[in-house]
Formats: sequence, C-alpha cells, structure tokens
Amino acid sequence: MKKYLVEFIGTFFLVLTVGMTVIDPGAGNLAPLAIGSALMIMVFAGGHISGGHYNPAVTIAVWLRGRCAAGDVPFYLIAQFIGGAAAAFLTLALKDHPTVTAMTPNVGHALIAEFVGTFALTYVVLNVATAKGTSGNSFYGLAIGFTVMTMAFALGGISGGAFNPAVALGITVMGLAKAANIWIYLVGNFAAAIVSALTFKFINPEDK
Amino acid sequence: MKKYLVEFIGTFFLVLTVGMTVIDPGAGNLAPLAIGSALMIMVFAGGHISGGHYNPAVTIAVWLRGRCAAGDVPFYLIAQFIGGAAAAFLTLALKDHPTVTAMTPNVGHALIAEFVGTFALTYVVLNVATAKGTSGNSFYGLAIGFTVMTMAFALGGISGGAFNPAVALGITVMGLAKAANIWIYLVGNFAAAIVSALTFKFINPEDK
Amino acid sequence: MKKYLVEFIGTFFLVLTVGMTVIDPGAGNLAPLAIGSALMIMVFAGGHISGGHYNPAVTIAVWLRGRCAAGDVPFYLIAQFIGGAAAAFLTLALKDHPTVTAMTPNVGHALIAEFVGTFALTYVVLNVATAKGTSGNSFYGLAIGFTVMTMAFALGGISGGAFNPAVALGITVMGLAKAANIWIYLVGNFAAAIVSALTFKFINPEDK
Amino acid sequence: MKKYLVEFIGTFFLVLTVGMTVIDPGAGNLAPLAIGSALMIMVFAGGHISGGHYNPAVTIAVWLRGRCAAGDVPFYLIAQFIGGAAAAFLTLALKDHPTVTAMTPNVGHALIAEFVGTFALTYVVLNVATAKGTSGNSFYGLAIGFTVMTMAFALGGISGGAFNPAVALGITVMGLAKAANIWIYLVGNFAAAIVSALTFKFINPEDK
Repeated sequence: MKKYLVEFIGTFFLVLTVGMTVIDPGAGNLAPLAIGSALMIMVFAGGHISGGHYNPAVTIAVWLRGRCAAGDVPFYLIAQFIGGAAAAFLTLALKDHPTVTAMTPNVGHALIAEFVGTFALTYVVLNVATAKGTSGNSFYGLAIGFTVMTMAFALGGISGGAFNPAVALGITVMGLAKAANIWIYLVGNFAAAIVSALTFKFINPEDK
Repeated sequence: MKKYLVEFIGTFFLVLTVGMTVIDPGAGNLAPLAIGSALMIMVFAGGHISGGHYNPAVTIAVWLRGRCAAGDVPFYLIAQFIGGAAAAFLTLALKDHPTVTAMTPNVGHALIAEFVGTFALTYVVLNVATAKGTSGNSFYGLAIGFTVMTMAFALGGISGGAFNPAVALGITVMGLAKAANIWIYLVGNFAAAIVSALTFKFINPEDK
Repeated sequence: MKKYLVEFIGTFFLVLTVGMTVIDPGAGNLAPLAIGSALMIMVFAGGHISGGHYNPAVTIAVWLRGRCAAGDVPFYLIAQFIGGAAAAFLTLALKDHPTVTAMTPNVGHALIAEFVGTFALTYVVLNVATAKGTSGNSFYGLAIGFTVMTMAFALGGISGGAFNPAVALGITVMGLAKAANIWIYLVGNFAAAIVSALTFKFINPEDK
Repeated sequence: MKKYLVEFIGTFFLVLTVGMTVIDPGAGNLAPLAIGSALMIMVFAGGHISGGHYNPAVTIAVWLRGRCAAGDVPFYLIAQFIGGAAAAFLTLALKDHPTVTAMTPNVGHALIAEFVGTFALTYVVLNVATAKGTSGNSFYGLAIGFTVMTMAFALGGISGGAFNPAVALGITVMGLAKAANIWIYLVGNFAAAIVSALTFKFINPEDK
C-alpha cells in the first residue's frame, strides 16, 4: 500500500508540473526544465520505497527486466493513472478552467517521437536504477529526470512529449491532447518499454 | 550556537536570491532556477552542521519526524526569520528602495498552492535527508533545492511560491506580498509540514 | 558487440537532440542545455558498458590514455558515425525536410573554437571518468555533459559547437554546416584529443 | 608544477566562458548558467590535483583554513591571474575586438555585492570541499559552480558578479569593467575570504 501511495504522489506532482507550466500562463520555454526536475525530485524522494516509476511504461519495462513483482504491476498502473488524473483536475481548478487548445500532431511523426523518447527514458531507467554496473550511484534521479527534460526539448513539438501513459491521460483530461489521439501514447510508450527491456538484456547479459 | 548561525546564513542567502532575482530588474523567468539553486548550495554547505533547514516548515517537519531536538526548534525559527528579514532589508538597499507592487492572489488558490508546494518540499526533505533508505547519498541538496525550483515554476504564479514562512516574511518586508496575506503562508506551510511528516511515517514504517 | 550498440544509441540521441533543438522551431537559446543533458544521460546510462564516449575524439583520447583497447577503436568510431548520421536523417524526417541555412564561420576562429572546446571536453572526460583520483564518483556524467553545454554557450556562435566529429557529420548531413568545412571539426577535435591526453599524463604522472 | 597548470587551465576556461557569454552576442540571460557550469566542470576535473580553486580569494580562504600550503599560494595566484588574462585576450580575438561598454556600478553597492557573493562562494567551498562532515561527497563541484551561478543571477546587475579577482582582471582586460574599479573586487573578494575562513572555523570547531 505504501508503494502505491508513493507512486500516486510522484505521478501527481509530475503531471501537476506539466499542466501548470505548459498551460498559459506557464513557464514558457523553461517548462521542460521544470517537468524533468519534477520527475527527478520524486525519483530521489520515493525511489527507496517504490522504485520511483511514476509511469506505466517504466513499470512495464522494469517488470520485464525482472525488478518489479507481477502482482504489483496493476496496482502501480492504477496509482499512476489516478495520480495523473487528479493532478489534471487540480491544474484546471488552479488555472480557473482555462480554454486550452489541443495540439494536432502529425500522427506518424508523433508515434515515432513517443517511441523514441520513451525508449530513451526506459533505457536510462533500467541502466541507472536496476543495473549491477551502476549500483549504489547518487545520480539516478538526475539521469532519469533530465532524460524527460531533454526529450521534451527535442520532441515536445512533435508529439507533446508525454513519454508516459499517465502523463498522456493527464494532458488529455486538461485538453492539451485530444482523446482520439491517446492511442498514440499508449502504443508508442508501451512498445518502447518492451524494446528497451530487450535492449537492456542484450547489453547486460550477466545481469539477471 | 553554530547551528543557529548556519540557519541564519542559509536563510539569508535564500531570501536575498528571491528578492534580487524577482524584483525588477531581476533574472526574469530564470528566477526559480536561481532560487532553487540558492537553497541547494546552502543545504550542501550547511547540512552537516544544522541539517540545512532554512525554513520553519522544514524544521517543524523534521522535528515531528524525530530528527530535530525540541529545544532547538524555537532557536532555528528565530534564526530563520531574522535571516529572511535581514536579506529583505539588504535587497531593498541594493535595489535603491524600489517601488514594488504586491501580488493579489486568489486566496483559496494560494492556500492550496502553498500547501501543495510545501508538501512536496517537506516530503522530499524527509525522504532524501532523514530516511535510512537513502542514507549516505550525494544528491540531497540537489533534490531539495530543485523541489523549490520546480514548485516555483509550477505554482509561483498562483501564490508567489514561498513554501517557507521565512521567505513569506522576506517577501512581505520587500513589498512583494501583502502583510494581510501572510497567514496564507503560515497556515499552508505548517499544515503541509504536518501532513508530510505523517506521510513519511506511513511510507517508512520501520524508520524510527 | 554490445559496447558498439551502446555507442550507437548514445551518439544517436546526442545528435538527435542537436538537430531537433537547433533547427527551427527548436529550443531557442536553451538548445545547449538540452544537448549537454543528452550527453549526460547517455554517459550515465551507458558508461558501465562502453565507457560512454559517443565521440570519436573522446575515443582517441581515452585510447591514448590507455583505457580503450586498440581493437575497439575502429568499431567505436564506426558506431558513432552511423549513430550520428542516422539521427540526422530522422531529424530531417521529423522536421519535414526543412530548409536549413548552413553557418559560414570564420575558419581560423572556428578551428580555435573547436580545438578549445574539445580540449575542455576530453580533459574533463579523462579526469572524471578514468583518473584514479576521482574513481567511484557519481558526478562523471554531469561533468562531461555540462562541459558540452558550457562550451556550446561559449563557442557555439563561433564554430557551431560540435566538439565531436560524429556531431560534425550529423550537422553536415542536416545542412547546418557545409561539407567543405568538415575538416575544421576533424582537425580541431582530434588535435585537441591528443593534446588533452598528453596533458592528462603530465598532471597525473602516477596514474598509468 | 602540475597543480599550477591545472589552476591555469581551470581559470582560463572560467574567464573564457564569462567573456564569450557576456559580450554581445553572447548567451543572454543564460550567461550565469554557463559561467557557473564552467566552474563546476573544472572543479570536478581538476579538484583531485590542485583542489580546483581557480580564484585567488578561494586560495586565500583555503590557506587560512589550513588546506593549502603557504608556499603554493603565490604560484596559485600567478597561475590564476595569467589564466584569466589569457582567456580575456582569446575572447577579444574570437569576438573580433568588439566595442565593449564598461559598467558603471554604484561603488558602495558593488563593494557589498562582491563581499556577499564571495562570502557565499568561499563559505560553500570550505564546507563542501574541505570539511570532515562532508568528506567523500560527489556534489562539491555542483555546489561550488552553482554558487557562482546563483550569485551572478542575484548580484551580477549590481557589481558585474566577479566574486573572483582573476575574473575581475579578465573582465577589466576585456573592457567590461573599468581599471579604476578593480580595487572594488580585490577588497570585496579578499575581505570575504577572510570572514568566511573565520566563519568556517567557528562552525566546525573540531575540524582542524
């Protein structure tokens, strides 16, 4: 139960930061710095309890890599989606229910961007937070959080830069993305999680 | 005595950075980066002496968690408030006693924002600086400082983004906030400290 | 083979971030933060497998310092150049084959800038990632990535700020640099690698 | 000799970054991020050889604290001043000998700003890089570099934000500061070094 609460809290603050810094008036071109840092601080704060996923794609990747119990997976995902939705509703309230224009991405490009960005994120997570070769390090939160920042700077204009189905739910609730497009995130993010778990096993063959 | 001096110095530099970067001409939209980094550097520099609170809400949360002696609490708070006020007066002098317009927040929204932001801050502090599960890490200052940066980017426009009664005093002295609104910060910040201490105990049950 | 895959992945994400944040519409004046962070995250993620070079000049410097097998060098360079080219093609596709104007640098100044910036990068890499005096640290990725960020802020306007022949190939493929100028990067970058390896040996005489 | 070379290299890159990012066209309001990061990377790279001072005021503070041999002090200062001047000349060459307008600070305010900012810097250096209570940490370069960033954001508009006599020499050579004002930096910076060394001894009484 405590693990699920930590996943709820972390995802809540991640999606709250997305909404508050992206919806006008927000943090302008610094939004990716705020969003990546929100993930960083929550990974550092909650990693020792739940692993600090805050992202259904990360939970799937960590489960495939063998560092998340199958029985935890559905509860992690539920906690993450509820956290993302709760943050979306609070954002709308604090912004006085603003008029938000949903982006209209090129579907093919957005699918590639979500796949590529989520691959980077889950590849970094598996290597800095679950690999024997980096165990005991003090940089895992910085590496994970700043991966989201970097990919948001690089790919945010193409797909919105969710790289996370719980964030995708949040930006859909807030009106930043269209409900009809949520499959782009689900497909792109989960596919990337699978590929990065396979990549991790290939490059860390002795690391069971 | 040395602990109180460290708390004075750290809070002084935190509030000085707030005032100098927020009052025009300041650091523009980069002010949260400077402010969060001010807290980070002072946590790294003074944590080994005083714990590096620089914030009455943090002191209350750490005391409730059992890592600050009750006898130290009033002196920590006095040192923090004096540091915040001293920095406010120096800021006004260096800025040639500028005309500052106080923000007029929506009170309900501001109360929520101060509660939410201070919860994030005290939750991160307790987990990265007092938990057995993260002991010996080298990231505590980065996590704590960048929590203030992130919450300032996300919520600064709603409440001013103090998340700290000593900062609230400082911005009131500088004219950035109205004296009549200081209760928003006191109530929001201390309530969050209590809730995050309870949250910490729930998610770290074996960590006495 | 796994080392070469890691070098491909890291260089791919580095050059993808360069292209996506520099070609309009990109990340504006924040591009160096994104680019340096791309290198940082990939160094933290892949360093335990391949050393995390992602840069032919770094591979040469590390080989001269005695921490990269001669037999690995050509395959590292091939993986890096392929990664850079692949990222350039993906960038062009995601940006819908944009009209890009190549910079026209002052050749002498650009040669100096590429030498100076690559010296900083390889000097930092050798000292934070291969020296006995800093072994076991958790900051190597931050130091290496932020060297590229710093030098890009300082020298990007003079030479484009590649400091990396694989990045030079990528920006040439994308049209940001002229093919006729690629020798500037090759000469400046590899010369700097040699000088920094010699400098490292001079300042770390007992470190074989 | 190797220690002096490291001090030369580090100060050279610090002052080069100051000049290249501050003189138009530079890095705009992001210059403090670049400058603080330049110091950070050089502290991480060279700290294990020379201590990574790159600043005469830091060398004096570390000497007073008992962690720099008296015989090294003059050579450290010479290497730092030569590094700063060399970087200034290279900056002017790369910028094609630009017309630079020197700032005209309020002398009293500038003296206070240089004292306050240098106190923060030397206080952080002594506590994160020489104190027993923080030994073995991986954050010293981040804390030291980002102190300069933070103080430059906060106080750069008042005094130019040198906090370092070698930087003061560099900005004077480049024309950003007037030769007649260099005493402001020398007095403010060295006075702060003395006060912070005394402060360190007071708050770390058992740390000889």
